[in-house]
Amino acid sequence: MGNFKEDIAKIKVIVMDVDGVMTDGDIILTPDGDFLRKYNAKDGFAMAFALKKGYTLAVITGGRGECLERRFKMLGIKHLYTNCLAKYDALTDLIQKLGVDSEEVMFMGDDIPDVEPMRHVGMPVCPADAATEVISVSRYVSQFKGGEGCVRDVIEQVMRARGDWFQLGEDVDTASR
Amino acid sequence: MGNFKEDIAKIKVIVMDVDGVMTDGDIILTPDGDFLRKYNAKDGFAMAFALKKGYTLAVITGGRGECLERRFKMLGIKHLYTNCLAKYDALTDLIQKLGVDSEEVMFMGDDIPDVEPMRHVGMPVCPADAATEVISVSRYVSQFKGGEGCVRDVIEQVMRARGDWFQLGEDVDTASR
Amino acid sequence: MGNFKEDIAKIKVIVMDVDGVMTDGDIILTPDGDFLRKYNAKDGFAMAFALKKGYTLAVITGGRGECLERRFKMLGIKHLYTNCLAKYDALTDLIQKLGVDSEEVMFMGDDIPDVEPMRHVGMPVCPADAATEVISVSRYVSQFKGGEGCVRDVIEQVMRARGDWFQLGEDVDTASR
Amino acid sequence: MGNFKEDIAKIKVIVMDVDGVMTDGDIILTPDGDFLRKYNAKDGFAMAFALKKGYTLAVITGGRGECLERRFKMLGIKHLYTNCLAKYDALTDLIQKLGVDSEEVMFMGDDIPDVEPMRHVGMPVCPADAATEVISVSRYVSQFKGGEGCVRDVIEQVMRARGDWFQLGEDVDTASR
Repeated sequence: MGNFKEDIAKIKVIVMDVDGVMTDGDIILTPDGDFLRKYNAKDGFAMAFALKKGYTLAVITGGRGECLERRFKMLGIKHLYTNCLAKYDALTDLIQKLGVDSEEVMFMGDDIPDVEPMRHVGMPVCPADAATEVISVSRYVSQFKGGEGCVRDVIEQVMRARGDWFQLGEDVDTASR
Repeated sequence: MGNFKEDIAKIKVIVMDVDGVMTDGDIILTPDGDFLRKYNAKDGFAMAFALKKGYTLAVITGGRGECLERRFKMLGIKHLYTNCLAKYDALTDLIQKLGVDSEEVMFMGDDIPDVEPMRHVGMPVCPADAATEVISVSRYVSQFKGGEGCVRDVIEQVMRARGDWFQLGEDVDTASR
Repeated sequence: MGNFKEDIAKIKVIVMDVDGVMTDGDIILTPDGDFLRKYNAKDGFAMAFALKKGYTLAVITGGRGECLERRFKMLGIKHLYTNCLAKYDALTDLIQKLGVDSEEVMFMGDDIPDVEPMRHVGMPVCPADAATEVISVSRYVSQFKGGEGCVRDVIEQVMRARGDWFQLGEDVDTASR
Repeated sequence: MGNFKEDIAKIKVIVMDVDGVMTDGDIILTPDGDFLRKYNAKDGFAMAFALKKGYTLAVITGGRGECLERRFKMLGIKHLYTNCLAKYDALTDLIQKLGVDSEEVMFMGDDIPDVEPMRHVGMPVCPADAATEVISVSRYVSQFKGGEGCVRDVIEQVMRARGDWFQLGEDVDTASR
């Protein structure tokens, strides 16, 4: 583990949990047996913008349901592990498929099932309201809570460190949603 | 660019983004593939009241979906650009159609796709929790966040500056919703 | 207008607006054209408890929709004015029907359409986040915001002033929902 | 009533109210007549984890509806009293069925219908935003509000006191949702 500024500039792959990271942890159950989640539009813009600039995004979550998968397909995220109880195994699988170094991977989690995979990437990060155990293994704790822009925050930081973030006057054909 | 008090009194057209401006940025995905958004009743009253007093309201958003359009039809907003990736083009089209001067236009946005159109109106404004890039091009930053009354705030300011806001004893046949 | 403590003990009828009072002002539009609102369980308990002790509750709102009416039927509120643009007329109608004095009526509103009826009851009250115009005509501003317990607060205050609120050991066969 | 640290280590059964405890008190009514509630993923992990380690969880609530029951079935909670107006009777029934001592029972409630059962267990606890009457009969008031992690907080405290909480390196095959 080296210098934070240098290490964040190495990131090419951003792996995210869903509940408590992309959302505030709220799960709304419907009479039809599906789960509704509230996603954040500013997070959405950052994910779409990062994909457009060539970053790889992945989702590893214990959650499941049609709505959940639709969100990520809508954004264009291809690497998706849902209903996942063994998150470290999923991460290992992802890293092998992508052929990247763990130093190039950021993982944003918020609760105990995220601790193990977070210990095996170069840049473990978390929202302001993550569980104590997660905060203790994180190299960076966002000032934003889950669902309130923490994903935007870390993507923006990686992209700024690598000179890929938005410049005034730049043409942006990506929606914020 | 002149005096703020004088310039805000010139506004006849109010253009608004949706996610993060009329809402807190939360997007709820449904199993049917639509998006639910939470709108603010105090914003709704101000929009209905402004329309009644002859102001022109317009919406330019990257969002789409039936629910989104219904909200604006319900309020009586006629100028509606949805699923819009080129917001500056939409603004140009609107200004030409209305035959107004850009000095008479207020634009409220919260994220990077709003920056370009905001640079081309007389009164660019934003919610308290807008992206840094948006705050830097705004002439006024509301104390209210997106979805928590920022639209009400700026409409009220324009209407007060022009002497059109509610007076005690005035008959108000406009619902708050 | 007399002493606040004496005047609040005269209240037998509690009239409430919906959006921004019983809710935080959020309106969720559904693809089917209905409106979803988030109600507060602690408010619900207070309303059910007040009805059980013989108070009269009424709702006067610009809102409409099936969900809205169901909430009040569920609680047992019989006096219901929905889709109402002329709130003062509705209040006058209610007072005549009930044969009560305006001194016995509390009205909780949060926005401009509530101002006129609030000026004609003995006890106009509002949530912490009411519009300026509403705060200025209120005799009491709750410390709680709309949807966060302001209805509970004012009902509890009336019932405590009249000796009707819950006593430790009292049997409560009313649900909190 | 003895020492708090000793007493919390005796807990084997955790009984919880729903509205205002597992949720922030918000109830969303649907056009179909059901109620939507927002549950917390971190609470969900703690409940699933406690069940896995052999704790007994129970729910006693005035609420009802299909969605409500599905949440608890999904988590594997077997002891479920819904649509319950007589909560003390439900608690008595539960304690008899389980054959436990009331000293081994924690009860988390937030409003007046919870006061009576809370007075009859060894460890009455509540969220930060519980009603005054509930706070006054509680031995512990969580720093977290209803729906924002208060259930996680008290389950974590019981399990830490008994040495059952998560240890770094421990295999966790429980989802956070």
